[in-house]
Amino acid sequence: MSKINKFKDIINSKIESIRIEGQPEELYNPINYILSLKSKRVRPILSLLSYSLFEKKTDKIIEPSIALEFFHNFTLIHDDIMDNADIRRGKDTIHKKWNKNIGILSGDLLMIFAFKMLENIDDKTFKKTFKRFNNIAIKVCEGQQYDMNFETKSQISEAEYLTMITLKTAVLIGFSLELGGLISNQEKKVSEKLYYAGEKIGISFQLMDDYLDVFGNSEFGKKIGGDISSNKKTYLIIKLLEQANPDDKKNILKLMNSNNQDQNKINFITDMMIKYKIDKISKNKMDSFFNEGIELLNNISGNIESIKDLKSYFEKIRKRNF
Amino acid sequence: MSKINKFKDIINSKIESIRIEGQPEELYNPINYILSLKSKRVRPILSLLSYSLFEKKTDKIIEPSIALEFFHNFTLIHDDIMDNADIRRGKDTIHKKWNKNIGILSGDLLMIFAFKMLENIDDKTFKKTFKRFNNIAIKVCEGQQYDMNFETKSQISEAEYLTMITLKTAVLIGFSLELGGLISNQEKKVSEKLYYAGEKIGISFQLMDDYLDVFGNSEFGKKIGGDISSNKKTYLIIKLLEQANPDDKKNILKLMNSNNQDQNKINFITDMMIKYKIDKISKNKMDSFFNEGIELLNNISGNIESIKDLKSYFEKIRKRNF
Repeated sequence: MSKINKFKDIINSKIESIRIEGQPEELYNPINYILSLKSKRVRPILSLLSYSLFEKKTDKIIEPSIALEFFHNFTLIHDDIMDNADIRRGKDTIHKKWNKNIGILSGDLLMIFAFKMLENIDDKTFKKTFKRFNNIAIKVCEGQQYDMNFETKSQISEAEYLTMITLKTAVLIGFSLELGGLISNQEKKVSEKLYYAGEKIGISFQLMDDYLDVFGNSEFGKKIGGDISSNKKTYLIIKLLEQANPDDKKNILKLMNSNNQDQNKINFITDMMIKYKIDKISKNKMDSFFNEGIELLNNISGNIESIKDLKSYFEKIRKRNF
Repeated sequence: MSKINKFKDIINSKIESIRIEGQPEELYNPINYILSLKSKRVRPILSLLSYSLFEKKTDKIIEPSIALEFFHNFTLIHDDIMDNADIRRGKDTIHKKWNKNIGILSGDLLMIFAFKMLENIDDKTFKKTFKRFNNIAIKVCEGQQYDMNFETKSQISEAEYLTMITLKTAVLIGFSLELGGLISNQEKKVSEKLYYAGEKIGISFQLMDDYLDVFGNSEFGKKIGGDISSNKKTYLIIKLLEQANPDDKKNILKLMNSNNQDQNKINFITDMMIKYKIDKISKNKMDSFFNEGIELLNNISGNIESIKDLKSYFEKIRKRNF
């Protein structure tokens, strides 16, 4: 898809040209390291696509769209510390390559640089964009805290889980679309519709991640059943515990409360999911969120070609086919 | 000093009325905890004093001044994690009372709330204030990284040390004064003068901290010689290593490279400081920065009573007499 590649090039060139340079290098090197790792740049691409619904030139959206990429990367740096994750985008995480203190501080700095990317927004659209950005940023932090809380909580409801992934992941996807509306100074109801379209689709992508972890094929790079091994409370597990009869539930919980990481555990829980049709339930839920989002997009009056581009980009992400 | 107390009350009431509330409580409780600890609120008070040089009512400066208090507290939360500090303002630090992950995330959130406090600045002064705030925030992170680097560096020059304390501490004191100029829409040269006045005085306060750690009396609450025990590279130690003859220097370094924390070490190094007049050298340096700052204030044409208030507040801080 050539337009997407063009947008990605624009974004990567801009990130390179911004060159977050400074001293001491212990603070700046980690930032340049994480920004140089291979990334799909989903959020800024979405902002450019969304902006293109209303405007031909992309100049004004580029820097603000990079605010989202910087903010997203800041969350990755800090989340990886909190989750004790060693690998990100196939490479060492910052706290692994350097240390935790450097991870904390370079993450902080990258968040400030995200705000810096808002500095050149036109006066007439600045304030409303800034306020929304702050509120979205707050929600993302809330989502990460819920996610951490879930680790020690024995049972999580579907509603709680959906709230968590909405905050942690989907609001920033929603805001990526909304930003195009804000910067092109659309009416509030248009920007809001863009936000909700992105939020719904963002939720479907997270549900897709959960699904592919169990029912995907290993080509996606992740080990199949990794979430089951690590007792992660995904949508599938939550639905399974909700649907299973008392005996099955007892067996599932017993396995989940163990540190057992062998293939038998993965197989048993996967079989249980099939028994209770959790694969189909999940797929339906995903599709329903995805279609809700697309429906909202269909109701936006923007450039028709650009709406097609945006929808086909979402389809590509959904099929994990970049 | 009744005006200062009045300002402090205004700030504390405002912080209480803002009430950073939300869910999950694991994220919000730590923020309300640190904000409720006894604090002198030096930075917002300085902003109110500075604003009073030009304006009678303080309404417009209050929220932005609280951005500085929030930002400062965010840095305390993260610095305490990085420094493994257990106590802050006489109470458990957040990562000690809860855990490190909660410290990281609630610090992140408090930084975002600092930005939120800028949302209601008038359009005509917003952009320049926002840009300066971002640049100051970047410098504070740089200062913290230099400070961490110094821990593992064998020798630090006076210039390097002054750069570090300027970034880590003094720029935010400078900006506290500058903010009064920015929000009251003074000419750039006036705001800059306020900044530099605060920066110089901020440097003098940090030098004072270093001095009092060795030559203060224990009434200030800190253990005398604590910095010497923990081998902290303060201004006094840096000057001592610069001035000492090779034999004395060897002995000092030997003690500094040990984990020895006994009184003899404190006594020996204190005696060495007296031998090389480090107490006097430090005092002169402090006074020179302090006076430079006051001189800059004397050159600002603002309300004369308010300039007096500001100078007398600085004198109070200098004498650690709040």
